[in-house]
Amino acid sequence: MRRRKKKGADLKLLSYTDYVFRDNIEAMSGKWHEKFKNDNPIYIEVGTGKGQFITTLAKNNPNINFIAMEIKEEVLLHAVRKAVENNLTNIFFIWGDVQKLTDYFAEGELSRIYINFCDPWPKNRWAKRRLTHSGFLERYRKCLDSNGEIHFKTDNEKLFEFSLNEISQNGWMLKNISLNLAESDFEGNVTTEYEDKFMSMGMKIYRLEAKSIR
Amino acid sequence: MRRRKKKGADLKLLSYTDYVFRDNIEAMSGKWHEKFKNDNPIYIEVGTGKGQFITTLAKNNPNINFIAMEIKEEVLLHAVRKAVENNLTNIFFIWGDVQKLTDYFAEGELSRIYINFCDPWPKNRWAKRRLTHSGFLERYRKCLDSNGEIHFKTDNEKLFEFSLNEISQNGWMLKNISLNLAESDFEGNVTTEYEDKFMSMGMKIYRLEAKSIR
Repeated sequence: MRRRKKKGADLKLLSYTDYVFRDNIEAMSGKWHEKFKNDNPIYIEVGTGKGQFITTLAKNNPNINFIAMEIKEEVLLHAVRKAVENNLTNIFFIWGDVQKLTDYFAEGELSRIYINFCDPWPKNRWAKRRLTHSGFLERYRKCLDSNGEIHFKTDNEKLFEFSLNEISQNGWMLKNISLNLAESDFEGNVTTEYEDKFMSMGMKIYRLEAKSIR
Repeated sequence: MRRRKKKGADLKLLSYTDYVFRDNIEAMSGKWHEKFKNDNPIYIEVGTGKGQFITTLAKNNPNINFIAMEIKEEVLLHAVRKAVENNLTNIFFIWGDVQKLTDYFAEGELSRIYINFCDPWPKNRWAKRRLTHSGFLERYRKCLDSNGEIHFKTDNEKLFEFSLNEISQNGWMLKNISLNLAESDFEGNVTTEYEDKFMSMGMKIYRLEAKSIR
């Protein structure tokens, strides 16, 4: 199915020149702290959608730097507008592809990677496209510092099962695993737009954190 | 609640002198292969109940040695009878306590430990009694050889969640995790009596395998 494009979203998005990176993002590799003008840790979200999660985090954590990555300009526009409305100064947006993560960021430049409700790519032959596939995990490991973590949420049982296996078998320690976030002890959960919808429908949300042990 | 004891079960159990170990089990430590009269790997089940699982495995895998551990004589008697009826020669039974595992077995004497549908001990203050608590995991690690594995099944979501966290954080790699065994790709599942009942009620069964990486 071809993605429906909202007319003009691209131009509007690019008008937010203080927030949005699209061209020559590779030139920023190793220079993100400079761009934020501080040494605070950088947390990114891959596939940020309409941005409720990452902009809420940015608002609540002024001493953390945030970068939201999204390839679809229509939804990214919503995310950027949330940042503008809240006058956030600790967040940037990358209109780009997570496949290029290691081009966008230098080794150890990031402290945390959030993956929320990504596409489950249910067929076996699509496994490599899942954002918790070993190919992506290796990219994450390269960009994360030695204490860096992946924080992952999904409503998809099969994707979560795949992710538990894939992550544990590729040199990561799992922690704070929740098989039902609503009934877990985990405090301070920040929700995405999808998550609010799923939770209101009584659907289970799965969550894990992972830390490299290599 | 006190356990109801079936009158005479203890004496009947002890009459199966070729199969059952109760007294001075510690003296067997390091001598199990000798007792089996071969060098085949030894797989044990802790809390074997009425023994459907382990006796089925023993029947289907003549080149593996099995040891079934159970503290309750009433149920163990059923398990032993299954072995006798099938003339199994590759299985022994320990009427004893899993707390004493490292007294019963020498370092690296075992190749696999099965834990099936153990008591979930749901209250936090009971966590240490769960058979996947780090205290037990350390005992398992001592008795397992370098390629040894834990295979764990439960119908209890909270216990499974606890176990995933506890196992991954204590130096084990998880694999073949199933969040819903009935719908998983896992083949050749051997069921316990409880499992048959739970599955017929449509309840989810969780399963994992773990291998020490220390």
